[in-house]
Amino acid sequence: MKIGIMGTGIVGQTIAAKLAQIGHEVMIGTRDTAATLAHSEPDRYGNPPVAVWLQQHPTVQLGAFSQAAAHGQLLINATNGAASLDALHAAGEANLNGKILMDISNALDFSQLPPILFVCNTDSLGEQIQRAFPNLKVVKTLNTVTASLMVDPGQLAGGDHHIFVSGNDPEAKAQVTRYLQDWFGWQHVLDLGDITSARAAEMLMPFWLRVWGALQRPIFNVKVVS
Amino acid sequence: MKIGIMGTGIVGQTIAAKLAQIGHEVMIGTRDTAATLAHSEPDRYGNPPVAVWLQQHPTVQLGAFSQAAAHGQLLINATNGAASLDALHAAGEANLNGKILMDISNALDFSQLPPILFVCNTDSLGEQIQRAFPNLKVVKTLNTVTASLMVDPGQLAGGDHHIFVSGNDPEAKAQVTRYLQDWFGWQHVLDLGDITSARAAEMLMPFWLRVWGALQRPIFNVKVVS
Repeated sequence: MKIGIMGTGIVGQTIAAKLAQIGHEVMIGTRDTAATLAHSEPDRYGNPPVAVWLQQHPTVQLGAFSQAAAHGQLLINATNGAASLDALHAAGEANLNGKILMDISNALDFSQLPPILFVCNTDSLGEQIQRAFPNLKVVKTLNTVTASLMVDPGQLAGGDHHIFVSGNDPEAKAQVTRYLQDWFGWQHVLDLGDITSARAAEMLMPFWLRVWGALQRPIFNVKVVS
Repeated sequence: MKIGIMGTGIVGQTIAAKLAQIGHEVMIGTRDTAATLAHSEPDRYGNPPVAVWLQQHPTVQLGAFSQAAAHGQLLINATNGAASLDALHAAGEANLNGKILMDISNALDFSQLPPILFVCNTDSLGEQIQRAFPNLKVVKTLNTVTASLMVDPGQLAGGDHHIFVSGNDPEAKAQVTRYLQDWFGWQHVLDLGDITSARAAEMLMPFWLRVWGALQRPIFNVKVVS
């Protein structure tokens, strides 16, 4: 499948590498391809520059947001939450309409420590994206785990933990659920409801950050025991 | 131990019944004892009136908030979150100072469905209570599960799931952790941090409500898999 991923950070790279590995045609989108390729230093987390990463993943293409969106039959939002709406506007509504967008973003405001959310409780980033692009089929998912777990849940407890989906389009949610199962190996996908339930998934992030602080490692997840 | 529980609703009743059963001297506090005893109808959830419940639990005493607070060596806030600060002011600072308060409340605003939180993200009800009563040792806990699970986690998956504690006083948190283990049987108590981490525990409530909607039953909990 042709897949367009918005965002070239660690989440975008991790998803892109996995999808390319299993045979999909992946393009990752960025605001300014020349500027992205010009970076020669590791990012603040020590990840290599995108240009180096692309050399290591030669089947993954880099393009502008609009090119990645036009390329993708399926779209994935892996941008920083604060930049997500701008990135999707740059992608262009015509390149989004009618497609499924797996929205992995988190509404994190890093101006405080621990980070706070810039939208929550009565609204969510998932809803903001859905409202901005009514003909895009937004499915919030994967935002509740660290990048390496998104594509390899089996590395933790044999995969016996949960991932969530929220969205207004039942068929889009069912499709995303199959992708999560077939591509990444998620065994437990729980449907939280329509896109307003993205509030619940996004409000797990402050909890995630505190558990990270308590455990001092990012490879953990919640299992819904019932 | 003499224990004062603020709140006569289902949470207060469930905790009181369990603590009385294992031999503690329990008083439950209410705003107006005469008004509470005058109720003769089941509440909106079908629970029996407090007067009937007290006949069924003859060792549990009923008193005003100030009497329950004065009675307790340990205090438990089981009031509706919207009424918690008023209840504790009515209890009186002199009856609170120096004691541990297990704060079970949730900042739920039921004016919308699903309910929203009336404080979150940059503050929490646990922090509001701690700021209002600086000499009270507030430990946020148990607010993330339904009442019957609070006192009997073993009824679900043999107790293999988590409860959380947040608070500024390490010894108070350690003490509450022992109570959770010894009195109720909690096997997994995770310390999320100081009282600001009550934000994380309270922001689990919107998630809890969505999972409740998905599962259509309240007996579930999260396990932190790591």
